[in-house]
Order: sequence, then C-alpha cells, then structure tokens
Amino acid sequence: MDYQKKKIAIDMDEVMADPIAKFIDLYNRDCGLELTLEHLHGKEIYEAVPQEHADKVWTYINEEGFFRDLKVMPDSQEVIKALQEKYEVFIVSAGMEFRNSLIDKFDWLHDHFPFISWKNYVLCGDKSIIGADIMIDDRPKNLRPFSGERKLLFTSPHNVHLTEFERVSTWKEVADKLL
Amino acid sequence: MDYQKKKIAIDMDEVMADPIAKFIDLYNRDCGLELTLEHLHGKEIYEAVPQEHADKVWTYINEEGFFRDLKVMPDSQEVIKALQEKYEVFIVSAGMEFRNSLIDKFDWLHDHFPFISWKNYVLCGDKSIIGADIMIDDRPKNLRPFSGERKLLFTSPHNVHLTEFERVSTWKEVADKLL
Repeated sequence: MDYQKKKIAIDMDEVMADPIAKFIDLYNRDCGLELTLEHLHGKEIYEAVPQEHADKVWTYINEEGFFRDLKVMPDSQEVIKALQEKYEVFIVSAGMEFRNSLIDKFDWLHDHFPFISWKNYVLCGDKSIIGADIMIDDRPKNLRPFSGERKLLFTSPHNVHLTEFERVSTWKEVADKLL
Repeated sequence: MDYQKKKIAIDMDEVMADPIAKFIDLYNRDCGLELTLEHLHGKEIYEAVPQEHADKVWTYINEEGFFRDLKVMPDSQEVIKALQEKYEVFIVSAGMEFRNSLIDKFDWLHDHFPFISWKNYVLCGDKSIIGADIMIDDRPKNLRPFSGERKLLFTSPHNVHLTEFERVSTWKEVADKLL
C-alpha cells in the first residue's frame, strides 16, 4: 500500500455495476410489463412498480447469482485503472445486506477489474466505518456520514432530484474531476 | 447508527474466533503428529510445521467450511455485548484473502453474535481503509496503519514477542480496559 496517495472509496452497484438494467429485464420478463428506465426517474425501483410487485425487488436481489453477471458501467474500467495511478482505490460495497451477493461481488470484481487487488475490496453494511479521502457513491446515506474531504454523488434514477452533493453522471465526468 | 459513540473495529480470527485450535486438530489428524499450542509460541503456523507441510496451512484455510465452525474465544460474546452499550462495535475481518471464507464468516457471526447487525460487519483486505477510534487486532500489519486513538494487540502465539502495542490477552482484559 502506498500511504502517500489519497484513498478513494468507490461504490459498486449503480456506480461500477448496473443492477437496475438487470432488474428491469427480469421484471418485464416475469410480469409481462414494459418498465423502462424513464419510469424510475426520481424513484426507488420498489416505488416505480405496482405495490403488489414491490417484493419482487427483494426476491431478485437476494437470489444467488443476481450480482454475478451485471453489466459494467460505461468507461468505469478505464477510468478506475487511471485513478489507480494517482490514488489508492478501494471498492466499497454495502453488500452485507445480501448474504448471497458476497461471493458474486467478489467474483465479478475479479473478472471485470482484474487490476484491482482483493486487498482493496471492502464488503460492509454501514459505510460510516470507512476512512478515505474521497467517496463516489449513489446513496446519500453513505455520503452523509463520510468524513473525507470530497463526496461525489454518482447519478442514478433514485437520486436525480438531490442537490446537496457534488454530482457526477458518467465516468468521464469522474475522470475530468479527479484525474 | 449512533454517531456520538466511539467506534471499535474488532478483528475476527484469533480474537473472536479460534482458527488455530482447528488447524492443530486437522493437522494432527492428517499428519499423525502431535503439534500443540506451545509449538506455535512466537511463530506463525507455517513456521512451526516441517517445511514440507507449510502448504497445508493454505490448503485448510482456503477450503469452504474452514471458518464456519470455529470455536468462539472465551468471554468474547459477553464482553462484546457489553461494549455495544458504550461503543459502536464493528467486526472487521481481512477475510477477502480467502474467497471461500466470506459466507462462512457471515454465517458464523450471525450464529454466535446475533446481537450484532450485518450493518456492522466488514470483510476487507487491507485494513488501512478502516476509520474507527479503537482497533482490537492480533496483527501488527493491521494496527500499524490504523489512525484511531487506541490500538489493542490481542495476544496470539505469533505476536507474543511484540512490544510496540498496548496488549490484551483475554476478553476480560478488554473489558477492564474499555468498559
């Protein structure tokens, strides 16, 4: 570890990986509906579906394998690789909420980000235990207690109306701000 | 989360759980030898066994299930439960080194420490990302980069000769110091 470099804590879901696209595919397949990303604008997934389907969200994401084949967010690989030159990059996911996600997340990172060591993986619950300089996350509940110098809110449908954080909407924007 | 309370990061292996006792049992069973805890005094396990057996350490701990049925360290349950009254307790294990340990560690914590929420579990690699006030750990590599106000080295055979940290050898001693 290079203790001279600043540390960045990067979230996985909706930042590096795309669980929403997978949820939409599964949901439309199983319910014969046509949910789109536009329906999720300003909402959590469970708020965007009919109330009787809200449980489906939890069923899908608790299944073994759900997190194993998520699409990689555009440009995240190239930008994170470049960030490693300048920063100590840690991947910090609140995966502990979903027991079955732990191995899936480990394997997914190993496959898609082979240039990041397992030493820099963190699977946790509450991120208030994370001590870093910069955090990139789509969840205000993770950014609010973070005591580092800079917090970047990564745009996701559920957070589009938030104004309290510095926002990034693509990995190219992350590169512009941090590289 | 109660952000007024100080945070303690507590290590699992050789602090809450006893992988050494299990290793000794497996090793003696498989090799027909009589390794004891005394042989490990001042040594890592792989230094205490004949060189041709050093690989066994890694074979055992990489097996699925190794971490699932470890003995709970004496008094750890009672003392950690009491610590929760005064501190925000996080369990921080460098389990990421062993892919197959992740679910075992999650399930073991859930079984033996049901009063600790999954929100307070952390499975990581390098612990320099942990931001807490107090760390209890048997490994100097984890305590050295820790920037919190207090570091307690939990006695384990491999660290008996170290003098650079405040030491605790039992959970009763932890209680005396922190409660």
